[in-house]
Amino acid sequence: MKKIHRFIFDTDLKETIQVRDQALLHQWAKVLRFKPGEEIEICDGRSHEAVYKVMSLEKRIAELERIGKVRDNTAEPKRHVTLYMAILKREHTELVVQKATECGVSEIVPLVSDRTIKKRAKLERLRDIAKEAAEQSGRGRVPLIHEPLSMKAALAHAEMNAANYFFHTDAERDIFKGVKAGHSRVGLFIGPEGGWSEEEAEQMLTHDLHVVSLGPRILRGETAAIVSIFLSTQ
Amino acid sequence: MKKIHRFIFDTDLKETIQVRDQALLHQWAKVLRFKPGEEIEICDGRSHEAVYKVMSLEKRIAELERIGKVRDNTAEPKRHVTLYMAILKREHTELVVQKATECGVSEIVPLVSDRTIKKRAKLERLRDIAKEAAEQSGRGRVPLIHEPLSMKAALAHAEMNAANYFFHTDAERDIFKGVKAGHSRVGLFIGPEGGWSEEEAEQMLTHDLHVVSLGPRILRGETAAIVSIFLSTQ
Repeated sequence: MKKIHRFIFDTDLKETIQVRDQALLHQWAKVLRFKPGEEIEICDGRSHEAVYKVMSLEKRIAELERIGKVRDNTAEPKRHVTLYMAILKREHTELVVQKATECGVSEIVPLVSDRTIKKRAKLERLRDIAKEAAEQSGRGRVPLIHEPLSMKAALAHAEMNAANYFFHTDAERDIFKGVKAGHSRVGLFIGPEGGWSEEEAEQMLTHDLHVVSLGPRILRGETAAIVSIFLSTQ
Repeated sequence: MKKIHRFIFDTDLKETIQVRDQALLHQWAKVLRFKPGEEIEICDGRSHEAVYKVMSLEKRIAELERIGKVRDNTAEPKRHVTLYMAILKREHTELVVQKATECGVSEIVPLVSDRTIKKRAKLERLRDIAKEAAEQSGRGRVPLIHEPLSMKAALAHAEMNAANYFFHTDAERDIFKGVKAGHSRVGLFIGPEGGWSEEEAEQMLTHDLHVVSLGPRILRGETAAIVSIFLSTQ
């Protein structure tokens, strides 16, 4: 069975689409070597999608014709999960963005915490990774990657969530088993390699965050992020 | 709070230990720059551990003295989980070994399936990764990394498990929520990038494996392995 390629971009999903994005045309013609007749799935990034046939593919323009109806995407989670993640080493941050997207995250806020070593993240690269992971995992939306925030700003952002959890590698804490069914919007705070500072832990308790752990084994930040997002989108 | 370094090696955890392993001595003296007086945790790889003080550290020998009693490790999962994982690209295989160890896997069987592109794995390297991840996550045992097996041999190995699950990226299948409480020994089969062949799917059904998915989003093999092991060790 041939796998159908899937793309997410801003479009109205009309019966015919003209594509003029040079990077996309290059990928189609030169990397994936599409020919007229190729069938692809297009998603508008707002949870609607349809299958199209490539009618023509030239250097500056491609024409697509829709096959069948526009459908609602069925892979988006019901719950809106925001990951507040202390910035990790570049390759770990990239891994988390890819896997968090597969697992259904809606927003990622890179966090500059007291023990964060890296203070910046390459946002364009992270957004590309999120888009590609959203396309490949069949999602209907691309997660939003925020500019890095301080802990204070992140806690203010998190006030719109019905519940927020902060993960501590401490087996005596409550074990995180997932989110209450009624909570449609939640936040997860994952610390840096060195853990949270005592001031941060206090700050988070003042803001009514739930202190939880993922059990007796000490998980790295990347692993905790992946697993906790998976549990939260169920 | 200073993090205590943790090491797993074959030892009887007596009141004094002499260490002659050259690689370990090099790491202690040159990489971690231990001085006499440093306190470290030693685990025997059979779920017992104790804190020791470095009394002397020379080029060919180090002497350690135990502080306090030998304790049972508390981070090992109750359930014995074996991951049968189609060999992925090198970096993805390494990622799975590290994360699966953190999440509590007991054995990993690299699998040569019909659509596996790589047929071999660097076992020494994978064993090093498993050992380091076991040390860092606080485990009492290092997962066993097998030689690669064919599907037939893996299915024979899996007969000793109380239940085996094979993961198919197909939303219509049963969603995997974890393992029955009574099942102390389970196996998880994760396919290669191209998925299982039809023959393999039939073969697995004949062997009474449960066909399951992880939900509507298509997870990469690495992500499916990490999440399914975490769910299985709870």
